[in-house]
Amino acid sequence: MPAYTDNRDAHLRRLRRIEGQVRGLQRMVSEDVYCIDVLTQVSAATRALQSFALELLSEHMSGCVVDAARTGQQEGEAKVREAAEAIARLVRS
Amino acid sequence: MPAYTDNRDAHLRRLRRIEGQVRGLQRMVSEDVYCIDVLTQVSAATRALQSFALELLSEHMSGCVVDAARTGQQEGEAKVREAAEAIARLVRS
Amino acid sequence: MPAYTDNRDAHLRRLRRIEGQVRGLQRMVSEDVYCIDVLTQVSAATRALQSFALELLSEHMSGCVVDAARTGQQEGEAKVREAAEAIARLVRS
Amino acid sequence: MPAYTDNRDAHLRRLRRIEGQVRGLQRMVSEDVYCIDVLTQVSAATRALQSFALELLSEHMSGCVVDAARTGQQEGEAKVREAAEAIARLVRS
Repeated sequence: MPAYTDNRDAHLRRLRRIEGQVRGLQRMVSEDVYCIDVLTQVSAATRALQSFALELLSEHMSGCVVDAARTGQQEGEAKVREAAEAIARLVRS
Repeated sequence: MPAYTDNRDAHLRRLRRIEGQVRGLQRMVSEDVYCIDVLTQVSAATRALQSFALELLSEHMSGCVVDAARTGQQEGEAKVREAAEAIARLVRS
Repeated sequence: MPAYTDNRDAHLRRLRRIEGQVRGLQRMVSEDVYCIDVLTQVSAATRALQSFALELLSEHMSGCVVDAARTGQQEGEAKVREAAEAIARLVRS
Repeated sequence: MPAYTDNRDAHLRRLRRIEGQVRGLQRMVSEDVYCIDVLTQVSAATRALQSFALELLSEHMSGCVVDAARTGQQEGEAKVREAAEAIARLVRS
């Protein structure tokens, strides 16, 4: 089971809030709300997605990465490499 | 009417696709999908939101900002200041 | 002359400070400073570069973009397109 | 010694190249180069700083974080927490 399972309900609540933000964006666009106000809301949704990603990543590292390292040097390094690639995708997105 | 009105349907389709991505994230979390795969999907949703923002901003500048500048120097500068603040929020989010 | 010419001295001071931050990073790496402290300084230098970019962009839009729009609709839109591409590069970097 | 010591020379070369990019920016501003071209170079320097950070972070995790985890669960989690905060600063900068 992934490391985030303990916090699954908190994650789902968070994602439902983000889904609400994206639906709010659709409403704003349908109602011809001023571009700048739409953009402010897009920035808020982007930041919420990033916070979710950082939280998930942190749990993954405390869980899977630490466990793998405790199993063996190689296992640890393999998990670190995988996490480092995910971090690069986040930093560049 | 905001500058994006002509492309409203395209924007709404785009936002519905992003909403689908966020619902996909909820499904992944409910089904205990591996963290790294969840993170890959978060990066994709973040990039989709950013592309939407860049598109909207570009239309806003070609429309509202250019129109305001053609009305008067001061009007143009006021709209530019407002757009610059929105850009700063995007770059920092 | 580019729109930033009036503020050229302020920009140069800012860039020299950023150069100092990058030289500081070299000193830290030479002296085997702890990775996390190096990373904190990298984040500071990145943010300083982004603030410089946002300032320059804002001056460019108040100057060149507004002027071009006041010259003609097409001229304005061409400058906006060019600025929008620069903004996309900033947001994605 | 930090995990990056083996690659110290490569890191220093990389940082000197970034210093050169920042000095190039000063030259561009002194010579009144067109704003958009300055901005393109700022984006390149920002991306180079981020790549350096990602590389350093990846070495830190393969080295210090894995070592700490192999020493003990608590040691591993402390290093992960510290790394997660550095990652959050990078993602938000």
